Amino acid sequence: MISQQYKDMLKGKSVIRELAEFAAARGKEIGYENVFDYSLGNPSVSAPQKFAETMIGLLNKKSSQELHGYSPSLGIQTVREKVAASLNQRFKMDYKANHIFMTSAAASALAHAIRLVTGPGDEILTFAPFFPEYNPYVNLTGAKLTVIPAETPSFQINFEQLEKHLNEKVMAVLINTPNNPSGVVYTAATLKKLADLLLEKQKEYGHDIFLISDEPYREIVFAGVETPYVSSFYDNSISCYSFSKSLSLPGERIGYLAVNPACADADLFALMCGQISRGIGHNCPASIMQLAIAEMLSVTSDISIYETNMNLIYHELKDLGFNVTKPGGTFYILPKALEEDATAFCRKALKYDLILVPSDSFGCPGYFRMAYCIDTEKVKRSLPVLRSFVEKEYKSERKSSC
Amino acid sequence: MISQQYKDMLKGKSVIRELAEFAAARGKEIGYENVFDYSLGNPSVSAPQKFAETMIGLLNKKSSQELHGYSPSLGIQTVREKVAASLNQRFKMDYKANHIFMTSAAASALAHAIRLVTGPGDEILTFAPFFPEYNPYVNLTGAKLTVIPAETPSFQINFEQLEKHLNEKVMAVLINTPNNPSGVVYTAATLKKLADLLLEKQKEYGHDIFLISDEPYREIVFAGVETPYVSSFYDNSISCYSFSKSLSLPGERIGYLAVNPACADADLFALMCGQISRGIGHNCPASIMQLAIAEMLSVTSDISIYETNMNLIYHELKDLGFNVTKPGGTFYILPKALEEDATAFCRKALKYDLILVPSDSFGCPGYFRMAYCIDTEKVKRSLPVLRSFVEKEYKSERKSSC
Repeated sequence: MISQQYKDMLKGKSVIRELAEFAAARGKEIGYENVFDYSLGNPSVSAPQKFAETMIGLLNKKSSQELHGYSPSLGIQTVREKVAASLNQRFKMDYKANHIFMTSAAASALAHAIRLVTGPGDEILTFAPFFPEYNPYVNLTGAKLTVIPAETPSFQINFEQLEKHLNEKVMAVLINTPNNPSGVVYTAATLKKLADLLLEKQKEYGHDIFLISDEPYREIVFAGVETPYVSSFYDNSISCYSFSKSLSLPGERIGYLAVNPACADADLFALMCGQISRGIGHNCPASIMQLAIAEMLSVTSDISIYETNMNLIYHELKDLGFNVTKPGGTFYILPKALEEDATAFCRKALKYDLILVPSDSFGCPGYFRMAYCIDTEKVKRSLPVLRSFVEKEYKSERKSSC
Repeated sequence: MISQQYKDMLKGKSVIRELAEFAAARGKEIGYENVFDYSLGNPSVSAPQKFAETMIGLLNKKSSQELHGYSPSLGIQTVREKVAASLNQRFKMDYKANHIFMTSAAASALAHAIRLVTGPGDEILTFAPFFPEYNPYVNLTGAKLTVIPAETPSFQINFEQLEKHLNEKVMAVLINTPNNPSGVVYTAATLKKLADLLLEKQKEYGHDIFLISDEPYREIVFAGVETPYVSSFYDNSISCYSFSKSLSLPGERIGYLAVNPACADADLFALMCGQISRGIGHNCPASIMQLAIAEMLSVTSDISIYETNMNLIYHELKDLGFNVTKPGGTFYILPKALEEDATAFCRKALKYDLILVPSDSFGCPGYFRMAYCIDTEKVKRSLPVLRSFVEKEYKSERKSSC
């Protein structure tokens, strides 16, 4: 019988998809350069020139079998060794190659991590605002995702709410720092407090609680921001990484899962990931892509552009009177909307060809996300439009609230 | 809690893995060129030169965003269009782009197809000899794989056994032609008879029964062999393809799923695959790989080498008195072992540095598989060794049976 489960999923309307469709249609009408599309996290910054050079070098120098032959199901050994060495050098960890499992970017790493440590009936906690794709990753395993309400305006962790929601069924806690959509980076104090609480609850419940860390924005952090390495705070941790954002390669689906060497069953986890992959029929990222990124572990795209964009937008938003928390990294910002219904706010913005995403699907209503991974020139052109939108649509209300 | 299911899967001992390890260790001792390793289906023939040229052309000419930006989750539209057009032209079908879903090779296509049309408690039938990785693809969805005993010596379908096993829980039948491990290609008569039977059973049970066709060897067929296109025989069919073998790109994980346009819910299936992918966290094959293969749809590696190898081995086996069915395609052959216990037979061959795979895990005991995707020169050198093995180990038995 045709699977009703997946058929039903087609009914869900995605606001982001609707917005993207609007932007595309409007772009055809007035030219895409005139649509101020802040909806998608698709990096505008090019991949480093070194990436193309590395790929061409591999294609010219290596044999077909070396480049395109089957990769071992856990990833190419030399690549896993280089990833481990790079993490150890940067974050003072003690990873070995057998703690690294190569994946099709962070989505695949997360799906594997979730299957590693939970099963049907288990519960996973995450924190608003959160990336809504966590829902299918968790729900389709038979486990349940519970979203802890946001701590505003800091967008750190709401510990009071976390303690309320912790229970014996919770097998994992899933965090994302630097965060999509808030742009906020968890402080060392936040991570320490989280680790202490989970250690205490592990003892109380008599079972492991794993910390799954979604880190695709790890490299995109701004000047002066403290950026602690999550796994150094908690032994039972799994780091999920992607090269999509740091190297601007989202289409190439390349990343890895790194199991904390101090984790329970640390030496089994990558092997178990291999078994999970057998079941989902997805064995490995492309072999040439593995070989290429192994040469790029200390390189990033020109991510300074995101900080430039962030500063321009942040200051304009402040000047316009928005309540907004300054991002510490990523290419997202999450200001409070100027009316309670963020979807209504974003719909009004469409009239100005401003594509903003309401925060409801991120589990944190009343805000809107701007993905500023677009050209700085376009950001600059968008600012007077943003001002005009705010002044025309909310002038009277803002005056009345003064 | 750490998933016991995946932990338990680690305990299963794989004979093929043991053999591969033996071959690697022995290779270090005596030089890998002296180990006659027929164990692995890793193509020895290089990818076409056009593949490297196409990749380098893309890297030099296209922008980073065009090459490496997010692919739509169902695959790049122009690639899907080209795949559909190529299938229509070659097989007189009527695919549109929306019937094509780009996958990480055949494994991923199969895993998606299985999830599309079955759920926990359902049953899928397949035919021995069969690729043992079908087990995890099916079992980890909660459905059950039932293996219909082989029809020997033809390795077509054993219809008597099939009729015995068909029941209301069967939602899909999974076939693989040209077949790994037998090398046999199902005839049009076989496919017609299968289609007729399934049509009859659909009516009887009052629900669809889908035919999932695993076709990674579709292009590797030998002179004079009839090679019908499976989906042209049965409306409710899903074709699972990979470029791993035809273009010698197994590490690059690229293939597709093609839904028969006449299939129930044909227009929904690719969309549903997108939802399945969300759950398993694997969104797409690498974008540059999609763009590259779209330029290679009428190209293959020099697959004539496999036919050369097959003829050398087949004639030597016949001359040595083996019961063996001549392959119509692939790079496999499945002769009957010279004693009942094929594992014992293959262990004895190891003494001669001949690596043969016993057929037990293919659901067809008493045979052994030779994967002749190795250099022809090595095949030639292996033949006197094979003769020596047979004569020394089985001479007396063969004489006594004369």
